[in-house]
Amino acid sequence: MKNINASIITIGDELLIGQVIDTNSSWIAKQLNAAGVSVKRRVAVGDSEEEIIKALDEEGKASDIILMTGGLGPTSDDITKNVLCNYFDGKLIVDEGALRNVKYLFEKVFKRPVSEVSLKQAEVPDVCEVIQNKRGSAPGMIFRKENKIYVSMPGVPYEMQGIIEESVIPLIKEKFELPTIIHRTMLTAGIGESALAEMIQGFEKSLPKEIKLAYLPSYGMVRLRLSTIVFDKKNEDTDIDSYFDELKILAKDFLVTDIDDSLPVVVGKLLKSKNKKMSTAESCTGGYIAHLITTVPGSSKYYEGSIVSYSYNIKETLLDVNENTLSTYGAVSEETVIEMLKGLLKKLNTDYGVAVSGIMGPDGGTEEKPVGTVWMAVGNAENYQTQKINLRFKRERNIEVTAMMALNFLRKFIVAN
Amino acid sequence: MKNINASIITIGDELLIGQVIDTNSSWIAKQLNAAGVSVKRRVAVGDSEEEIIKALDEEGKASDIILMTGGLGPTSDDITKNVLCNYFDGKLIVDEGALRNVKYLFEKVFKRPVSEVSLKQAEVPDVCEVIQNKRGSAPGMIFRKENKIYVSMPGVPYEMQGIIEESVIPLIKEKFELPTIIHRTMLTAGIGESALAEMIQGFEKSLPKEIKLAYLPSYGMVRLRLSTIVFDKKNEDTDIDSYFDELKILAKDFLVTDIDDSLPVVVGKLLKSKNKKMSTAESCTGGYIAHLITTVPGSSKYYEGSIVSYSYNIKETLLDVNENTLSTYGAVSEETVIEMLKGLLKKLNTDYGVAVSGIMGPDGGTEEKPVGTVWMAVGNAENYQTQKINLRFKRERNIEVTAMMALNFLRKFIVAN
Repeated sequence: MKNINASIITIGDELLIGQVIDTNSSWIAKQLNAAGVSVKRRVAVGDSEEEIIKALDEEGKASDIILMTGGLGPTSDDITKNVLCNYFDGKLIVDEGALRNVKYLFEKVFKRPVSEVSLKQAEVPDVCEVIQNKRGSAPGMIFRKENKIYVSMPGVPYEMQGIIEESVIPLIKEKFELPTIIHRTMLTAGIGESALAEMIQGFEKSLPKEIKLAYLPSYGMVRLRLSTIVFDKKNEDTDIDSYFDELKILAKDFLVTDIDDSLPVVVGKLLKSKNKKMSTAESCTGGYIAHLITTVPGSSKYYEGSIVSYSYNIKETLLDVNENTLSTYGAVSEETVIEMLKGLLKKLNTDYGVAVSGIMGPDGGTEEKPVGTVWMAVGNAENYQTQKINLRFKRERNIEVTAMMALNFLRKFIVAN
Repeated sequence: MKNINASIITIGDELLIGQVIDTNSSWIAKQLNAAGVSVKRRVAVGDSEEEIIKALDEEGKASDIILMTGGLGPTSDDITKNVLCNYFDGKLIVDEGALRNVKYLFEKVFKRPVSEVSLKQAEVPDVCEVIQNKRGSAPGMIFRKENKIYVSMPGVPYEMQGIIEESVIPLIKEKFELPTIIHRTMLTAGIGESALAEMIQGFEKSLPKEIKLAYLPSYGMVRLRLSTIVFDKKNEDTDIDSYFDELKILAKDFLVTDIDDSLPVVVGKLLKSKNKKMSTAESCTGGYIAHLITTVPGSSKYYEGSIVSYSYNIKETLLDVNENTLSTYGAVSEETVIEMLKGLLKKLNTDYGVAVSGIMGPDGGTEEKPVGTVWMAVGNAENYQTQKINLRFKRERNIEVTAMMALNFLRKFIVAN
């Protein structure tokens, strides 16, 4: 069995001027990896015939599977379909299934007359196999050449995802004999990448060649991942689990979770296991902690809600923070977050709570409290803890890191209390 | 003057297994574009010597400027520096400035002893010019070959951004004679990409070759962008403004803004111009509307806060929603969002408010109210409006689209009231 490689080509001028962030590539990479396909390269090119052809030539040489997204829309800047039609020596014909789908979408879903331009979406090269797109008007297309598979999909994430899950992954599993890619991931917090590397350097040197260790820092935390590829389906035993156990012991003081869960999921599982509920009082994070928590399906089981107290006024009226506390110590102070937490627990009546107040920038900093100063409090009816952090990022990242650190502070409190 | 092209190479196994989303490329592309550099290709490769060299060869042929991020960390999976050292025939030496920086960071910022591993960060190839990294331990490196510039930067977004802004953009402006890239962007809402294309197809055909039109859909809205490149610095007059004015008239019924602002910024400007304040009551969006608003610097001038009422209980106690309303019509109903809005305006005492309740999935849908059903209400003390929307995405995207549609609904109400 050999390694099966894939290249991902994303097409669109908007990717080259930075107007959009490419989330498709990483989503596709994750699905391919889970199926046992190694992604070798990801390339983004503009809506240019020359550049698309060059990418097809290069990636066709590099990989067994070439997945493309983008440039299939109904407007004239979308040229991918015509370029593919020429590249694979086809001519455009109307696909009856795609035509029915376009008509259905306009009549039943969008509820407006189908346009000339949209009817053209049903045209496909006669040399491709059509993948019907149940979520939009542009069909997916499969081309085969020299034992390689090329798939073109729309760039709209929701539509592309349907096509990958329902058609592309099954097709790849059918055509190729695939190895198993095994990952073991843990999340650590409270230690930097380089200190962690120093701490486990002996372990790292002891790893056999076929097991790889990766450090993946995000939001002030570091994921550690061991990976290996197993080619022999009959013998999927590897040493990865015993190495992973060893790593867990080494990193135990900083371990958040030993599975590939996000921090909001970890907090949710913890609360569910204790049958407890939580709430949040947010000033500087402006609802972002609530958003992280509620992105998890089923979070309503353990999350009651948040008071986003962006003004002094709301801190006083909704969280019962004392006017004197605010005028004496300021909104960003230990005293204020303690009162926010107490007000929160009283008003929302939850088992646990977290309260945060800080200065996210770019303005609002002072010499005493520069941009990046944050106070946070976590607690329950009996007990609370506070901590002060100092960040040095830009506004958006300050918000993200503060939210994650507050959630981790809460997690530790819940574990201990 | 000729077009100056750039390639962006992002390096790291984590990009190929989908564990992280590459936000660096789009950020870099935006900065290059603003400086008059056209980005031709973006490539992501793994931490593999062979793949990095291949990318350097290919992109060195394709572009004048090759910007790289990633693989400069202190851990053993980071190999970029060694690969570059060999590729450009150098040997590693300690850079005194970088060494001072590493020591300073550990002593003054991280406040822990500097590690062996981190001291290695101060080593650079003797054939590069060093860019000191004020935000982290890995320095940037500039290599020059055959009149092309190669820049290697750390993958940590905050560190990379400092290096680009302070060093790379000034360097590029000094070395190359650059054209001006002019964009005119408007944001539309309430019309799909294909219907918009049909509506303005006559206009699109009338555009001269040097002016390009792009459709950029996001969150159920569509950005329209006209672009042109001006090579003659002395004569930057183009017809782009008159074409843009024509397009504005054609799209007037759907126009949100005629500058490249995000919707939260548009709402903020509108409120500031009227000297009014707003607040939010969020159920299904779980704080995401609040987050979008508070991501804008200075939003505390017009935003008081949010009540994220994720449970029935909070809807009743904090927003005064009647228990009977909830039991009779359910949390996702016109009656409930109207009461949420009224309770919000009373409790937070703001000029405007928006209230949202819906079912984001994957669970919680019924035949009568399937996943994607959302009710929203916007209003002030005198007046309110409601609307029901039906989405068909996955949870995260349902949340994002709902938040944007609620903000746009509020924007229209503020304009009219």
